[in-house]
Amino acid sequence: MGEHSSLAEIVAAVYHDMAPHFGRGHVADYIPALARVNPKHFGLAVITCDGQTAAAGESETLFSIQSISKVFTLTMALEKLGGALWKRVGHEPSGSSFNSIVQLEQEKGIPRNPLINAGALAVTDALLAGGEPAALVADIVAFMRGLADDASIGIDPEVAESEGQTGFRNASLANFLRANNNLHSAVPDVLTAYFNQCALAMNCRQLARAGLFLAHAGVDPLTHARVTTPTRARRMNAIMMTCGHYDASGDVAFRVGLPGKSGVGGGILAIAPGKASIAVWSPGLNAAGNSLVGQMALERLAALTGWSVF
Amino acid sequence: MGEHSSLAEIVAAVYHDMAPHFGRGHVADYIPALARVNPKHFGLAVITCDGQTAAAGESETLFSIQSISKVFTLTMALEKLGGALWKRVGHEPSGSSFNSIVQLEQEKGIPRNPLINAGALAVTDALLAGGEPAALVADIVAFMRGLADDASIGIDPEVAESEGQTGFRNASLANFLRANNNLHSAVPDVLTAYFNQCALAMNCRQLARAGLFLAHAGVDPLTHARVTTPTRARRMNAIMMTCGHYDASGDVAFRVGLPGKSGVGGGILAIAPGKASIAVWSPGLNAAGNSLVGQMALERLAALTGWSVF
Amino acid sequence: MGEHSSLAEIVAAVYHDMAPHFGRGHVADYIPALARVNPKHFGLAVITCDGQTAAAGESETLFSIQSISKVFTLTMALEKLGGALWKRVGHEPSGSSFNSIVQLEQEKGIPRNPLINAGALAVTDALLAGGEPAALVADIVAFMRGLADDASIGIDPEVAESEGQTGFRNASLANFLRANNNLHSAVPDVLTAYFNQCALAMNCRQLARAGLFLAHAGVDPLTHARVTTPTRARRMNAIMMTCGHYDASGDVAFRVGLPGKSGVGGGILAIAPGKASIAVWSPGLNAAGNSLVGQMALERLAALTGWSVF
Amino acid sequence: MGEHSSLAEIVAAVYHDMAPHFGRGHVADYIPALARVNPKHFGLAVITCDGQTAAAGESETLFSIQSISKVFTLTMALEKLGGALWKRVGHEPSGSSFNSIVQLEQEKGIPRNPLINAGALAVTDALLAGGEPAALVADIVAFMRGLADDASIGIDPEVAESEGQTGFRNASLANFLRANNNLHSAVPDVLTAYFNQCALAMNCRQLARAGLFLAHAGVDPLTHARVTTPTRARRMNAIMMTCGHYDASGDVAFRVGLPGKSGVGGGILAIAPGKASIAVWSPGLNAAGNSLVGQMALERLAALTGWSVF
Repeated sequence: MGEHSSLAEIVAAVYHDMAPHFGRGHVADYIPALARVNPKHFGLAVITCDGQTAAAGESETLFSIQSISKVFTLTMALEKLGGALWKRVGHEPSGSSFNSIVQLEQEKGIPRNPLINAGALAVTDALLAGGEPAALVADIVAFMRGLADDASIGIDPEVAESEGQTGFRNASLANFLRANNNLHSAVPDVLTAYFNQCALAMNCRQLARAGLFLAHAGVDPLTHARVTTPTRARRMNAIMMTCGHYDASGDVAFRVGLPGKSGVGGGILAIAPGKASIAVWSPGLNAAGNSLVGQMALERLAALTGWSVF
Repeated sequence: MGEHSSLAEIVAAVYHDMAPHFGRGHVADYIPALARVNPKHFGLAVITCDGQTAAAGESETLFSIQSISKVFTLTMALEKLGGALWKRVGHEPSGSSFNSIVQLEQEKGIPRNPLINAGALAVTDALLAGGEPAALVADIVAFMRGLADDASIGIDPEVAESEGQTGFRNASLANFLRANNNLHSAVPDVLTAYFNQCALAMNCRQLARAGLFLAHAGVDPLTHARVTTPTRARRMNAIMMTCGHYDASGDVAFRVGLPGKSGVGGGILAIAPGKASIAVWSPGLNAAGNSLVGQMALERLAALTGWSVF
Repeated sequence: MGEHSSLAEIVAAVYHDMAPHFGRGHVADYIPALARVNPKHFGLAVITCDGQTAAAGESETLFSIQSISKVFTLTMALEKLGGALWKRVGHEPSGSSFNSIVQLEQEKGIPRNPLINAGALAVTDALLAGGEPAALVADIVAFMRGLADDASIGIDPEVAESEGQTGFRNASLANFLRANNNLHSAVPDVLTAYFNQCALAMNCRQLARAGLFLAHAGVDPLTHARVTTPTRARRMNAIMMTCGHYDASGDVAFRVGLPGKSGVGGGILAIAPGKASIAVWSPGLNAAGNSLVGQMALERLAALTGWSVF
Repeated sequence: MGEHSSLAEIVAAVYHDMAPHFGRGHVADYIPALARVNPKHFGLAVITCDGQTAAAGESETLFSIQSISKVFTLTMALEKLGGALWKRVGHEPSGSSFNSIVQLEQEKGIPRNPLINAGALAVTDALLAGGEPAALVADIVAFMRGLADDASIGIDPEVAESEGQTGFRNASLANFLRANNNLHSAVPDVLTAYFNQCALAMNCRQLARAGLFLAHAGVDPLTHARVTTPTRARRMNAIMMTCGHYDASGDVAFRVGLPGKSGVGGGILAIAPGKASIAVWSPGLNAAGNSLVGQMALERLAALTGWSVF
């Protein structure tokens, strides 16, 4: 962080600089429950490894974390399966859009990485392992509550239901994985679990808190609980850096310089290794499907703090 | 760096750990002059921002830097053209092999990034700008000599000539760029310049020294000469992280956690931002076309130093 | 037909020439009910526009017509929708394998032609139009019985069920079409109808008879019933010529020179326009998924009769 | 042919029906010498196997046959190499645009068929076989003069030169083939020969005459000279049917029902096996790169004559 500013001053400056842009971008319209969200929302929360926090805007308003959930189910799956998980999903950037089925065909049903939809479905299947979707969803909610130290976190049932009605592309991907023997539970069960994890409703404060272990070598710096190993935490950051923003991952690395993961609800979780966890939310998306103002805010925050890893 | 070890001790340990692997991988065989290289070579050199150096193995033996030259011509082109360069080449991972022409067709002649062959050809064309290839090659050599502070650096004419005879795939890419109006000089001139830059012969010590400005915000920490701006240096590191190892860039980020660029001659340049520049060389390549033992050495070095950015 | 031979003599000669090859190829193994079929079966039946018939081998043994059903549902859909059908499916060769989803993505959910799985699903959906699958299946069976003038034709329930269990790739395609608004009925209903049409059990004699209208400008030459218009009959032959054998359509045009459609059950329907309808069956498939001996038999038959359209 | 009309009456009727459309479509603009052609030209010539001829419009005006030359070099190459040619080029429809390099990469440098640019380059290379381009060009011209029985046929040097200046995409394809060891002569020599064959200037009368052997089992029905074998003639017709009109080959089969080959100069050669050879010319192209009015004229001609093979 620059020497002249406190974290609170920087967060306030980012908010100030972003204000003229509030409302820009296009709200995701393929899920009815998301399409109704006002694009003018903006929230930002930062928490450092030594426990400092700063927030601005609607940092307490719940939003649908959507694909950001992939980071957390990946954490769970790595703890459960260890390195064997990498036989079912790669860790290379995809070079194509987030729900592409083309690459999946060319690569015989092994998704390129766990942060695109096909890969996340394989991860969720690995967690489900033939069990009940409701039980897995309860586990995921419990895991998020623990990480965020906040028992109020839950799933927005309307969003989960809404995904179920319109998620034909995910159903296509899941059936494709199944056809390639890379999905072992029943397709509807995997989709149910997946649509629920995507429908997790959290606010920026909770989300930043939940991701803090990734900034601290896998250990929650405030509770000292070990969430994952240092190597895995580092590797998850690497995957977020190269694959976390769909086909704009290179651009985010280039502009922001922090590992992160975005969701079509307009949220982004970003990690400054050794320093802080950051959550930003603004519903309007850019052409690549990432929060337009959220990404700008991260670029500004990285510039003011000097937190870019590069 | 870990507290218990000096840089020299760590470099020695990496050498020791790699020794059983010397000779693994397959030497690039598509260029006759490279195919004759003994795969058992291994060299390693590290230079820190405060001027410490350490080396092991054949760190003084010249090798063909090949694609690593792309990092340096990109630096030159950014200084010459500024942000306008990004209209001619993107900065996204390609998700396919290093000399793929498929993506180039789908993206209408705009290469995905400057570290794949098609992108590097566009960068070289931007530098050439209709001029004489010999003059550009002289400029590149002068630039490298300046960066490495070593006037002995030159081009291996046999390798340059060897590229010229077998480089049909690059000729295909260059003509394709030209057909898409993204190459403005004469194709043979661009290829001549490109084959020469790839044929730069350097040793690990020189290469690590030449890259040091990338670890120090664009300024050579020893001479204080400004090579590029802090923002550009950071962005080049970002591009190396997401795109520097062909279709294994994600894997190198995952295992090593440092931005870097490999060449089919078996060299790799890696940057630890704020800390050091590293060059490793071992001619045997893995399936992705990167130095097999070189990448292992970097993984070990990153583990022992704690230099991973993640 | 050559001047020296009767149709019966030619059919006998083809049988004789094929006998040494019986059993070659690999029986489709992705549907359990098909995987059990003995590869040594061979049947052949020819019926001319003037009512001559000739047969050899197991021309009375029932087999699963599988993709050959696509020709008949296309006939039904063209009669129902007319040219509007071509807004939902193209009529170009696909240049890729029969169940590829890649092309479907690149072409925004409009399948390349009605003889690949994705296109046939769209055709079946057009016929279903939100109705009951059982009613459509009954219509299809009635249509086939009418064409073949044989009320015994039906569906093999075991095969239909078997498709239902293993048809994840078709489920993937159907969901993908749905995600692109090119499938309007419920996905499970479309799949039910589709798996049933594929499970039609017919013998060579019945199949040749059912296709005879395509050799006679859309009119059954024996009953004089108009099945479709002359233009549509001609166009269906054109589609069979360019698209009827998956990614080997060019090779079949090259070797046989007759429009046709193959199925993974080992059957092929071929049409000699103005002359005859031919059905051949041999369960072993070649690498392209077409009956190996069946295709050889057609090549021989075309050579002996001179029926190639070229 | 319908019973009520003479060939001359039908040709006149086609001309009459097309007249309102003259000038439609877009003249190819990537070759300067072609871009200057007036789109309103229209010529049509038909010659039957029994020597009848009929013509309309500018059937005596020379135009650049461009890709139609691929049919004739293929004939020459098949006579020279026989079936061995098919090791270097396939005979399947490409399912993509005429100068796509994507498929070439996926298929390891074996072009899908000899009627797309990549395939035609391989065919020309097979004819060149390391010899002098000028000698091959002379052979091609002599071959065309012999087929058309017209010693005045030659090459338009301005068009040949024009191709040479702008043919970067063909240069890209040729280098790509060379990189894959499927082009053995020097790239510039192959391109020189190829650009010259494309620049053959012929009129409709000459072109129809030159193709007549394809309608008569490989033998010129007027001179009784054997040009190729019956099997090869039939197979060339099959390839024209499935591959002759770039990515609209299926559509032409569907609408016209005759094998044919189009060129970007606006010409189309079509064959009615056993009946006639047809050449039509109108420079305006449709979106698929085929003569817009020329294709309409063929559709009308096929309808009036009943010559569709289907």
